[in-house]
Amino acid sequence: MHNQPEKLLEVRPDGKPLKSFARVVLDRRATSHFAPDPVPREYLDAILELAAQAPSGYNLQPWRFIVVQDDANRKRLQKAAFNQPKVAEAPCVIIAIGMKEEVKARADEVFIEGAQRRSADPEKIEAYQKQAMDFLSTMKMDVWVNRHVMIALTTMMLAAESYGFDTAPMEGFDPAAVKKEFGIPDEAEVVALLAIGRMREPEKPYPGRFELARIAFTEHYGRPWSQR
Amino acid sequence: MHNQPEKLLEVRPDGKPLKSFARVVLDRRATSHFAPDPVPREYLDAILELAAQAPSGYNLQPWRFIVVQDDANRKRLQKAAFNQPKVAEAPCVIIAIGMKEEVKARADEVFIEGAQRRSADPEKIEAYQKQAMDFLSTMKMDVWVNRHVMIALTTMMLAAESYGFDTAPMEGFDPAAVKKEFGIPDEAEVVALLAIGRMREPEKPYPGRFELARIAFTEHYGRPWSQR
Repeated sequence: MHNQPEKLLEVRPDGKPLKSFARVVLDRRATSHFAPDPVPREYLDAILELAAQAPSGYNLQPWRFIVVQDDANRKRLQKAAFNQPKVAEAPCVIIAIGMKEEVKARADEVFIEGAQRRSADPEKIEAYQKQAMDFLSTMKMDVWVNRHVMIALTTMMLAAESYGFDTAPMEGFDPAAVKKEFGIPDEAEVVALLAIGRMREPEKPYPGRFELARIAFTEHYGRPWSQR
Repeated sequence: MHNQPEKLLEVRPDGKPLKSFARVVLDRRATSHFAPDPVPREYLDAILELAAQAPSGYNLQPWRFIVVQDDANRKRLQKAAFNQPKVAEAPCVIIAIGMKEEVKARADEVFIEGAQRRSADPEKIEAYQKQAMDFLSTMKMDVWVNRHVMIALTTMMLAAESYGFDTAPMEGFDPAAVKKEFGIPDEAEVVALLAIGRMREPEKPYPGRFELARIAFTEHYGRPWSQR
């Protein structure tokens, strides 16, 4: 495995400084139409590196990402995604998948390296690994990998925004068709697509969000959070 | 529903400026032990507001968050979370849940307001809502709400980090016990817990991440991404 990147891009492609986290979140909107300008390779590297830093249960990292930039491949992906125009328009579309079996089959490596790096007590590593595998055996693995892949994909989406790109997360696709077209193993869950590029048209008006009192509760379900 | 917050906290509680997105991601580590210092209320408000800005399919926002700060309640939550010490130590623990039924029952409101705000074409709003409900009827709702809640919870975790707090996302809990203790409806999925506070002890060594070539592919599953 590898260490954190020592140095990441700290400016946007236009030379502007990166936005604050709050601005990244507030400015992010799902982009409907993309211009063809490609995402520079060094930015794709940085966006993927940041996504790879996402946390996961026992550091098992069940996420995998297929980066689709080729014109013909984006058209194939568009067909498997109910013909959404943005899939073929965006210069880069990420297929985010989660591995339900590989994550268990290759867990040894994670636990051995965790002990070598002293992230876990080497004396207890076998017990720790057994605990992890016992825990996973109680989980619905489709739910579990979907949860985890979304941590990394959300990080990726916000990373792209922080570098000044526009994004569109998508859940409208035929998983079987996506698997077939891109050689994805049966055991994988196709979790989401993420288009990355530059918007071609102004964004649609903001659709609003539920008030905090509706979605956040104080101490107990149903007791509305009251904002200061 | 409400608009985006016009003004969000743009400094940390110690007066320092917010970190760049890349630093937020690189500095974030799962905290094992927390100090008792509370999270100031205005920061909890900002963290919740940012989480609420997360995107969701058709803007349906299936996430709900129970903010647990009371000592006795954190001890009750700890019991339902395999007695993990950090649940009782952290001054604030968020229970993140997803609503499988309410999200459909209350969809009208989202579509009507979307049309009023001209986020969707008012002429097409009925067809759009039908399409959404047809789509949801094809989804495994436990998977769907887990995906969505993790978008908002990841945003929340990174928001807390950007304000200089430490966090620990957790998946080790007994969902039935959490539901019983906090009055959560049967139809809900308990997706994750997020502890927010200040670390009490230095972080464990970084456990490493898979190389990008292992988790990212070029155009097709299995063709390793080669970083520049």
